[in-house]
Parts: sequence; C-alpha cells; structure tokens
Amino acid sequence: MAASTTTSKPTPERIFNTMIAFQETEALKAAIELDIFTAIADGANSAGAIAAKTGASERGVRILCDFLTIREFLTKNDEKYALTQEAAIFLNRHSPACLASMVDFLASPWSRKNFGGLTEAVRKGGTANVTGDHTKPHEEVWVNFARSMAPLTIPNAEFIAGLAGAAEGKPCNVLDIAAGHGMYGITLAKRNSNAQIVAVDWPAVLEVAKENAAKFGVADRFSTRPGSAFDVELGEGYDFALLTNIFHHFDIPTCEKLMRRVHSAFKPGGKVIQLEFVPNEDRVTPPMAAAFSLVMLAGTDAGDAYTFAEYEKMFRNAGFAKTTLHPVPDMPQQVLLSEK
Amino acid sequence: MAASTTTSKPTPERIFNTMIAFQETEALKAAIELDIFTAIADGANSAGAIAAKTGASERGVRILCDFLTIREFLTKNDEKYALTQEAAIFLNRHSPACLASMVDFLASPWSRKNFGGLTEAVRKGGTANVTGDHTKPHEEVWVNFARSMAPLTIPNAEFIAGLAGAAEGKPCNVLDIAAGHGMYGITLAKRNSNAQIVAVDWPAVLEVAKENAAKFGVADRFSTRPGSAFDVELGEGYDFALLTNIFHHFDIPTCEKLMRRVHSAFKPGGKVIQLEFVPNEDRVTPPMAAAFSLVMLAGTDAGDAYTFAEYEKMFRNAGFAKTTLHPVPDMPQQVLLSEK
Repeated sequence: MAASTTTSKPTPERIFNTMIAFQETEALKAAIELDIFTAIADGANSAGAIAAKTGASERGVRILCDFLTIREFLTKNDEKYALTQEAAIFLNRHSPACLASMVDFLASPWSRKNFGGLTEAVRKGGTANVTGDHTKPHEEVWVNFARSMAPLTIPNAEFIAGLAGAAEGKPCNVLDIAAGHGMYGITLAKRNSNAQIVAVDWPAVLEVAKENAAKFGVADRFSTRPGSAFDVELGEGYDFALLTNIFHHFDIPTCEKLMRRVHSAFKPGGKVIQLEFVPNEDRVTPPMAAAFSLVMLAGTDAGDAYTFAEYEKMFRNAGFAKTTLHPVPDMPQQVLLSEK
Repeated sequence: MAASTTTSKPTPERIFNTMIAFQETEALKAAIELDIFTAIADGANSAGAIAAKTGASERGVRILCDFLTIREFLTKNDEKYALTQEAAIFLNRHSPACLASMVDFLASPWSRKNFGGLTEAVRKGGTANVTGDHTKPHEEVWVNFARSMAPLTIPNAEFIAGLAGAAEGKPCNVLDIAAGHGMYGITLAKRNSNAQIVAVDWPAVLEVAKENAAKFGVADRFSTRPGSAFDVELGEGYDFALLTNIFHHFDIPTCEKLMRRVHSAFKPGGKVIQLEFVPNEDRVTPPMAAAFSLVMLAGTDAGDAYTFAEYEKMFRNAGFAKTTLHPVPDMPQQVLLSEK
C-alpha cells in the first residue's frame, strides 16, 4: 500500500486496502499451507501443474497465484508463474532461510483472537483475551512460538553470539531465560564450544529447545530449568544472561523484579543481553519497533514496546549500572547490553 | 509495505508485514468503532483528551494512535495527534465523504469467514462457506452491504448518471437490478427529475434502498420489485438497466441467463450499464481489479473478476451486439455499456 497522504488529491484507496488487509495474510497463509512456493521451486509453473502438485483445483491455484503475482511474491509471464527472489529465499521450504513456518504463530488463532478484541483492549488498556498475564504459563501459545519462529532468529542470534565474544572460545556459563526454541543460546554454544547453556522456560517449551540443541549438536552443553522465570531456582555464577523478547510482555515493576532475580545469579562482570523492539522517544519511529506496542496492547495485560530510556532506568533500578543499545544490521529489533 | 523485490538484497520485512497484515485491518476497525478520528476532528488531540471523549483508556488510545501515526492516518507532534488529510476526508464522520462504515462490510464476520477458509477454497475451486450460491438470498449479508457500502458509490454513481444522459432530463424508465443501497438509481433520479426507477433486490435489502430514496427526495419515482433477479417479473419498456457489482458473483452461464432476462425487458435502443472490476487479459493488472478475483474465490461458488473479452462475449450471447468499456476516473472499477 502506497502512502497517499503526500499527494495533492487524497483517494480512498489506502483506506480501502487497510480495511481488507486481512486478505493479504490469508492469501499468504493459504499459499504456505498448500506449499505453492515449494511446488514452483520444484518446477511446476502453470496453474495446472501447480494444482496437480499441491492437490488443489486449477481454478483456485490460478486465482491465488494471480493474487500473489499482484503482490510481487510471484511473477507471471505467458501463463507461467515463477518465484520472485524474495519468495525463493524466504518462502520456498528448500531454502535454509525459509520463514514460512512463522505464519503459524504470527497469524495463529490466538493472535487473531487478541486482535479481534482490539476495540475492547483500547477501552480497558490491556488485552481482552484471558491469556494476558504472561507470568503465567500458556504453554500451547509458547510451544507454537518455539516451533514457528526459530527461522527469524538467525541474524539476531549470530549478532548476540558476537557480542558475547563467542569466537574467543572462553569457558562461560550462559543463562537463557524464556529460551523458547532455544536458538539464541544454541547459536552461542555452536560458536563457542566452551559455553554451557542453562535454559529456563515452561516444561513443554523446553522440549522444543532440547530438540533444537540435539539437532545442532550442542545437547551435551545444554541443560534446562523448567518453570517460571519468576519462581524457578536460576542457579548462580553466570557470565552471561540472555533475555530475548521477554520484557515487553510485562509492566515496569514486573520487568524490574525479573532483572533483580537475574542480577543475583551473576558473577561480578557478568553481562545481560536483551533483544527487544525499542522505539524512539516519539514512540512512532522506527515503524516496526514502534508498531510492536500494539501487539502488546492486543495480547497482554500491561506489556509494551519500551524506549531505551525506560529500559535503562528499569535495569539501573535492578542493579545494572550501565546499559548500552546495539542495533542489529537489517533487523527491526535491537540488542541491549547491561553490565553488573 | 514497500516492495523489496527490486532491491539487491531481499529482506524478510515484507513477508513479515504480510503475515501480520490482519493487524492493520483490526487497528483501523478499532479506531472507527471508537470513533477516534471524529474525536480528533472535534478538537481532542492528546491521548488523555481522546480517551475522555471516546470512553477508552489513555494507555490504549496512546498505543492505538501511535500505530495510526506510523500508518499515516494521524500525525503526532509534541504528544498531540492530528488527522492527515486522508483521515479528515474519509474517516471523520462529519465529512460528507466519510467511508468509515465500509469496514462493517469489508471486514465483516462473513468476509472473515470466507477468507478464513481460503486454503480449502483454493483446494476445491470455490468458497468453503455455505453462502457461496449468490442466486440464493443471504439477506443478512446484503443488508449489511447496503447499509455499509453506500459512501464508496458516489463517484461511480455520478459517472453512470452522466453516461445515461441524466443532465438532458428526458423521461426514462430505469431498471436497477441488485440495487442494494439503491444509490446508483437514486443518483440518476436526482440528476434527472424525469427518471423513474424500478429497483430489484431481496425484500429486506430494498427496505434500505427505500430509506435512501426517501432521504434523497426521490421516493415518488422509486418503486421496487422484491425477489430474485432470476425469477421476479422485471416488467418491460426500460430505457436503461443498471447492473452494478452483480455479474462477478456468478459463473458465465448464469451471467448470460441474467443478461437474457434483462434483454427481454428492454425497449429497442435500450442500454445496459454495468459496473465491475475488470482486469486486463493478464489477470494481474490493474492491481485492485485483478485482486478482486480472490474475493470471489473466497466468497462464491463460481464467481470471478471477468475480463472485458469475457464480458463482451457473454453479453453478445445474450443478445447485446455491442459492449464498450468506460474507465471511471480515479476509481478501481469500470463501467461497461451494452446496447441492444
């Protein structure tokens, strides 16, 4: 959708497109569910051939593939479809960078329900869903997250491994809180064969992380502490703690409480590495980080996309004298690094 | 969402944004339901003032208004929100061009359900919903359409009144099939005080059209024939027939059947005026007309956005020797004019 606000004569086109924007999600989701991108990667290029390969109707495939062409996920020439570069890299299941699984979480029934109650959430100032207290286990939600969202972690996880000096290979103990799929700790362990990872999350979620640790060959250095990050015994003597995509779920006092628990588990000189959507002070830039606040309004009781100043103050209150901000190249999230 | 397919290094941003595009619809819908745009037009400009005026929470309003700012429906300066020109014209309920009601149809539960079954619709080649045969009454759907979608008709209706020579003021009988809100016939009657309109639609839908005819002062020249366009006695001796947004609901034989019924109700020299989304032969341009095909796949058993060549052939088979295409300035739909 092009912004029409700067043209001299406004048209209703952008408003119309926003009112039907949900169709975009459904079209991409249907194409992923039918695995149309992989079928085209495998050589099917006409509506008939794609239909045969995906078990769908030729008419349905023709209409969906035309829509995907209009949206520049495909090209169409002489009734033959092909993948755009973007689709070939990110939507074809043969590609190591394939992100297709993310739709299972981003457009899950849970997420739809959160946003389906958005009017009520704006009225009350927090989610209209019953799952808004994220200090409580909602294992079905977070197992889905862990199974779906691992592909997007790669650049962030590599960046974090770099910040943690993984290439130096020094022995270190790493606490990964709200580990989810576990890929941040696992990536660090892959890059530093002397790193030991302790992952904290709900029991069913840690099963996914353990599968990934085995898959990436670091299972012998990957242990778990199942339970709430607010209650479970965290252990002590850690060099690094990873807290990725967790603080935005809570209000400020809860964030400070969690950070104080982390503080007490640390060696002097230990570092906490956070990954978050961090909007500027205006809260409307940069767009992806700032827009994330709405996801928290829709889905949590009191979570938010906090600014750097807010995080710096929270972490200082919890005992971390210094916090610095580190943009991840080409990614919407940012890394914060807090030192004890 | 910016197209990233032409950049040298594809990023996952556009795919991510498409997976969460449904959030755009929900945000705009919530803002319309809370009437935030009108509150700002009425002078509320801080989150607190907007919250007080709309009965919502300040926190919820702040987050939603920030999101609307990111999406360029609002501006934000020094914590004060203002309407963009686009929002002032099309989303503020004081504006005569306000389109806010359209979200009630475009993002209705019925439309969501149609698109929620899109994967199955692609598999079978037609809607997965039970309401796919649009020759049958689904009055709840079409009353909602009639109540919600009238605002978008204005430019098209004025264009059609012009094509029908309304300014000349000649006496004429006009048959408006699938009249819906009735605004095409009503606009023609407003522009030609010697025009008599006969509207055909389901009974409950015609009640909305009659309200509009009274509102615009043409009730004395507006009569109705309730029932199916395929069965009801249409009458005869018409100079013009209006068939707006109807053919796309059906397969080709059904379109031809309807057009033959219209043909027999006509004076020699009579003209049929259709309004449709008409994609080019490639079926992927222009984008809005071509994308409409997916709406028909999702919601009908066998409807489509037909090309001009397809329409020309259907109408010729039904007895209309000549059909011409007339783009409506600045609008995605096109008018077809068929002569007996």
